[in-house]
Amino acid sequence: MSGSTFGELFRVTNFGESHGPAIGCVIDGCPPNLELSEADIQPELDRRRPGTSRHVTQRNEPDSVEILSGVYEGKTTGAPICLLIRNTDQRSKDYGNIVQTFRPGHADYTYWHKYGIRDPRGGGRSSARLTAPMVAAGAVARKWLGERHGISIRGCMTALGSVEIPIEDWSEVHNNPFFAATANGIDALEAAMDALRKSGDSVGARLYVEASGLPVGWGAPLFDKLDADIAYAMMGINAVKGVEIGAGFKAVQQRGSEHGDELTLEGFMSNQSGGVLGGISTGQDLRVNVAIKPTSSIRVPRRSIDLQGQAATVETFGRHDPCVGIRATPIVEAMLALVLIDHAMLHRAQCADVEVFTPAIPAGLG
Amino acid sequence: MSGSTFGELFRVTNFGESHGPAIGCVIDGCPPNLELSEADIQPELDRRRPGTSRHVTQRNEPDSVEILSGVYEGKTTGAPICLLIRNTDQRSKDYGNIVQTFRPGHADYTYWHKYGIRDPRGGGRSSARLTAPMVAAGAVARKWLGERHGISIRGCMTALGSVEIPIEDWSEVHNNPFFAATANGIDALEAAMDALRKSGDSVGARLYVEASGLPVGWGAPLFDKLDADIAYAMMGINAVKGVEIGAGFKAVQQRGSEHGDELTLEGFMSNQSGGVLGGISTGQDLRVNVAIKPTSSIRVPRRSIDLQGQAATVETFGRHDPCVGIRATPIVEAMLALVLIDHAMLHRAQCADVEVFTPAIPAGLG
Amino acid sequence: MSGSTFGELFRVTNFGESHGPAIGCVIDGCPPNLELSEADIQPELDRRRPGTSRHVTQRNEPDSVEILSGVYEGKTTGAPICLLIRNTDQRSKDYGNIVQTFRPGHADYTYWHKYGIRDPRGGGRSSARLTAPMVAAGAVARKWLGERHGISIRGCMTALGSVEIPIEDWSEVHNNPFFAATANGIDALEAAMDALRKSGDSVGARLYVEASGLPVGWGAPLFDKLDADIAYAMMGINAVKGVEIGAGFKAVQQRGSEHGDELTLEGFMSNQSGGVLGGISTGQDLRVNVAIKPTSSIRVPRRSIDLQGQAATVETFGRHDPCVGIRATPIVEAMLALVLIDHAMLHRAQCADVEVFTPAIPAGLG
Amino acid sequence: MSGSTFGELFRVTNFGESHGPAIGCVIDGCPPNLELSEADIQPELDRRRPGTSRHVTQRNEPDSVEILSGVYEGKTTGAPICLLIRNTDQRSKDYGNIVQTFRPGHADYTYWHKYGIRDPRGGGRSSARLTAPMVAAGAVARKWLGERHGISIRGCMTALGSVEIPIEDWSEVHNNPFFAATANGIDALEAAMDALRKSGDSVGARLYVEASGLPVGWGAPLFDKLDADIAYAMMGINAVKGVEIGAGFKAVQQRGSEHGDELTLEGFMSNQSGGVLGGISTGQDLRVNVAIKPTSSIRVPRRSIDLQGQAATVETFGRHDPCVGIRATPIVEAMLALVLIDHAMLHRAQCADVEVFTPAIPAGLG
Repeated sequence: MSGSTFGELFRVTNFGESHGPAIGCVIDGCPPNLELSEADIQPELDRRRPGTSRHVTQRNEPDSVEILSGVYEGKTTGAPICLLIRNTDQRSKDYGNIVQTFRPGHADYTYWHKYGIRDPRGGGRSSARLTAPMVAAGAVARKWLGERHGISIRGCMTALGSVEIPIEDWSEVHNNPFFAATANGIDALEAAMDALRKSGDSVGARLYVEASGLPVGWGAPLFDKLDADIAYAMMGINAVKGVEIGAGFKAVQQRGSEHGDELTLEGFMSNQSGGVLGGISTGQDLRVNVAIKPTSSIRVPRRSIDLQGQAATVETFGRHDPCVGIRATPIVEAMLALVLIDHAMLHRAQCADVEVFTPAIPAGLG
Repeated sequence: MSGSTFGELFRVTNFGESHGPAIGCVIDGCPPNLELSEADIQPELDRRRPGTSRHVTQRNEPDSVEILSGVYEGKTTGAPICLLIRNTDQRSKDYGNIVQTFRPGHADYTYWHKYGIRDPRGGGRSSARLTAPMVAAGAVARKWLGERHGISIRGCMTALGSVEIPIEDWSEVHNNPFFAATANGIDALEAAMDALRKSGDSVGARLYVEASGLPVGWGAPLFDKLDADIAYAMMGINAVKGVEIGAGFKAVQQRGSEHGDELTLEGFMSNQSGGVLGGISTGQDLRVNVAIKPTSSIRVPRRSIDLQGQAATVETFGRHDPCVGIRATPIVEAMLALVLIDHAMLHRAQCADVEVFTPAIPAGLG
Repeated sequence: MSGSTFGELFRVTNFGESHGPAIGCVIDGCPPNLELSEADIQPELDRRRPGTSRHVTQRNEPDSVEILSGVYEGKTTGAPICLLIRNTDQRSKDYGNIVQTFRPGHADYTYWHKYGIRDPRGGGRSSARLTAPMVAAGAVARKWLGERHGISIRGCMTALGSVEIPIEDWSEVHNNPFFAATANGIDALEAAMDALRKSGDSVGARLYVEASGLPVGWGAPLFDKLDADIAYAMMGINAVKGVEIGAGFKAVQQRGSEHGDELTLEGFMSNQSGGVLGGISTGQDLRVNVAIKPTSSIRVPRRSIDLQGQAATVETFGRHDPCVGIRATPIVEAMLALVLIDHAMLHRAQCADVEVFTPAIPAGLG
Repeated sequence: MSGSTFGELFRVTNFGESHGPAIGCVIDGCPPNLELSEADIQPELDRRRPGTSRHVTQRNEPDSVEILSGVYEGKTTGAPICLLIRNTDQRSKDYGNIVQTFRPGHADYTYWHKYGIRDPRGGGRSSARLTAPMVAAGAVARKWLGERHGISIRGCMTALGSVEIPIEDWSEVHNNPFFAATANGIDALEAAMDALRKSGDSVGARLYVEASGLPVGWGAPLFDKLDADIAYAMMGINAVKGVEIGAGFKAVQQRGSEHGDELTLEGFMSNQSGGVLGGISTGQDLRVNVAIKPTSSIRVPRRSIDLQGQAATVETFGRHDPCVGIRATPIVEAMLALVLIDHAMLHRAQCADVEVFTPAIPAGLG
């Protein structure tokens, strides 16, 4: 409702600004007796953090997470878990030149008109830096989903601007700075990024994320559909402009005889649905595509207006990501985990004692 | 949370099944003193109802709405508004042959495993018929948005299967059974539908919906973003598999210098953002695309399993829509209205007394 | 949030006005596979309905409940359950003389100023008649609590005005019109009510309600405490002005050595806590007292103002309850049931897999 | 839902344990442009903090609050406000002797059975220390309520055990350690507390809290009644066992002609309602009584059981409050403020444009 809490039963409340003293979140509703320490969370933050390659912002921020509450002798207690990440590199002078103007494609303008005030330092509240606490919370969710349900989540980049990136080898995802699931064509991506950075412009990206190991039956009809909640979660990530489940926009041109996944005793024969029917999981892999727009802070001069309502030209200097999509894979994974844990808990609330005598078929083709 | 309530401040709780005694909804939180009668709602229901052309299900259902509460002497009182639609055409025998099996692409299978029980008559709770109460609630929201804020909402079909339908003339939308915003090519659409119906198969569609007249500032950062809530609303509609805001998936290939909408004293110079920046409205038109999958109930035989876990073949007879997208335009319009009224009220709650001294620029290019 | 929905996981949305076409509620989140028919609900409504003795309003209303959705072949499906009660006796002329004035002690005045409009017929939305749908929803909750957890709930009147009514024999509760748990002193209560009715005045009452059979562990620390939710539920009933859990206001004068319930292997040695510690159930009986104010609609003339802001005298004629507390026992029972089912479901969501090796002690002294 | 968030529009999420690294809260939804610094919050924390007299726990904790987010250049931005209070005095050895047993009247037992784990250090999550973040959040709410609406809130102790404390002079509240609104009888209270402390026992208390300056019309019918939300807020405070609004339990014995507050052009002639009719504010003073039980941690030996399920004797040593009610006045004030700001915002959401032509009468007798 008030905008900073995600989830209903596993609730994550996010706080902080890019250049304030700290960012973080409070997780309320985490089940008790989950083994948890900073070491479970830090690796996920490290995957997202800036400064890891020449293609992302050179802001130097270790993003060290501290657990302030909710864990006793290495286990969650059921009490809220506060995760704190101190901001250490707050060179707000970098942003001095944009305080008086509104960047095209940036939330500057809308924040100003909504609140009558904005924290302009590094984008303030609208900074992609605020995804870090979600990655941290997602790490807690992933641990629980993995240990209790055997669910795993993985994502990769499938397009960098107009360069399509095939999914060929998931083991390669961490061997390149792009989260590409292939060893082929990485040089071309590096070259494209170098040229882009030199030009002062930015570019969009497309990501793919999937979850495996789900049971049949998570989700809800009508408004808390699993796919609707995924769309909400993904579209809520900075810079996301489109979301697809399964066949997505390809479904427009499909026939029903092509789109409807046949069931056999060996499992589903295809996965056009993306693992969701009627808002409820089928047991197949969940499949999601996400479109990410190009960064709005670029060096190319653009027309805009200033706080006095006068015409102005905006050029952004300082540290920026020429493609925000590059660091977004850990974020889409985390958000998917947060949707799933909430639905896992909701399912237990309503249907803990449901017994189905017809066994579910195997998942079949992912 | 429990799946049948949409919205936070203007809350719509939906109830009913396709072949039960009635469907309907309760709207809680509607502002008082809005003039309202059934005559404000019925026309929207009539646009969505079945039987209006040969291309949609021939179920004969008048969908007459009755206001049971919340209105006194023609005005809303602030109390909950119950809208009731009696089901009159409940030929459940049409569905007799599918009670024992699971239709490929249909929620039969997931409902069964989630709840251990399902109402199979006409799809029960998973029927698209349950969008009717949302169209009714949306009519109330649209009236308030129009009268208090001058906001108008309109939608159309932009693709029927592989046939692209250009937006050429909004005044044509109600002159053809497809909600096409053009007078051209309707014959081809009719022919395509006739061939499709004869083949026993179904096809997907793409819809476009927009809202005009929004102020700058509705929405919220992080999780109750206007665009995230729109994605949630749209993906929650039966059969929707993809949602785009503004440039959508085109943003993947755009440069920042192309995507970021420049601001001038005459307004924005483009609308790649689709009217939302940082989750908050820019004052430009809101622009949304929606992908709708082909109907799962088709006459073409498909492989499946039955309630005893045995292999089976499924063919669906009886009344069905070969393209559920055809009747979906009033639904996407209604859901957009429901998102907007909620954000209008939320904005008043938090920011009722914000004064911004820099005037907003004109909306510019929609 | 918007005021007409109670509960988070077992959500009851109430609608209707005293003299509109119908009142009712939608229950969302009810677990599936619960056997349910109107016959499970009607008896509870009959206990609350008017016209059952000369001491309550003579409005003649059968309060017949109809299940409109959510039940298939006699079992709940997990889909929302709409319960409808048509208003049949709408003699709004009875209230004609109060449309222009504000009754002292009545919500007339506050509704008028909040909404700028009110439905004055029979109290409109503020009528105690709106507790009927809660009694109906409570019947569903009680059935589930009884069948799944062996929980029983019972209430009685413990004071009618200044007449204290001892709890001596629970089997007598339904043998008198007052829900008194005793066979003694009923004549005196009858006489007191007759005198009161003749005087044209009204009187308050105190009720007691308890739940037995709870497990240890339902509830939550801090804000969703079981006792806080009970206080919320009870204070939300029309005319309630005070709520006590366990020792209640007696705890003010108690010593810690008296109030703290000792634990032994035979169970708790007392129940000052009323069955809740730290917001979580102890396994003992839940014990709640509720204070109900005298009816505001009385024949005794009172000073007030009218809609034109002029001084006026108000006398209420027509059908009224001289003690609203008389019919309130089924209501407090129902609200307690609604709190408990919500916490039962919440507990499953978060703690479904908690194993405690130290066994709980027996409940001991209720 | 998950227990640690209070409020719907002005949402306060509380985190921390008594002896963990820190406690605090995140306020989401605070209106923008409110001037705010630590200096606005610290005085309220100082009123509640331990060690201020010999009658309260001698734990030495400065309770210094740090604003981590949501404030820019001295003003709130509309973004979430994280308030952090580091725990500095964590002498958990004081509690070593109670780790293995369950204190009578304490949440030890219920936490253990709910979660299968508990943080026993200083009561962990169930410690009254967790009210400090609520006092801090309440300070923000009070500032806004005062500046925007001229609302003031004040509370006092009206009974310490069996000693009644009259309200005679509000200016005396801070001149004694008991928050007594009188200069008379303080010596007797001091003596009673000294004797109590020597005895190793504890005692209950009754508090009164009121709010002045409310407009007519805040609140909502049915379930989000202003008084129901107050009851919820108060009963959620540690150790509270009873709540009254206005006449409270006295209403049981009142006649309608006594209880119903007459209206005249000079205002209400009495305030039996406590400022709420039908769940909505009347414009009169809000009046609330709260019963607080005696501290459960006492030196007097009590029977209990231990973690192995064996009989045990419990005596609590270390620092404790012999009457938790003594420090609770700032807490009840804070919780009342949090209820009011939420309703203020909710009222704007639904009724921002209501115009009432009949002017409200003056508040009249508080």
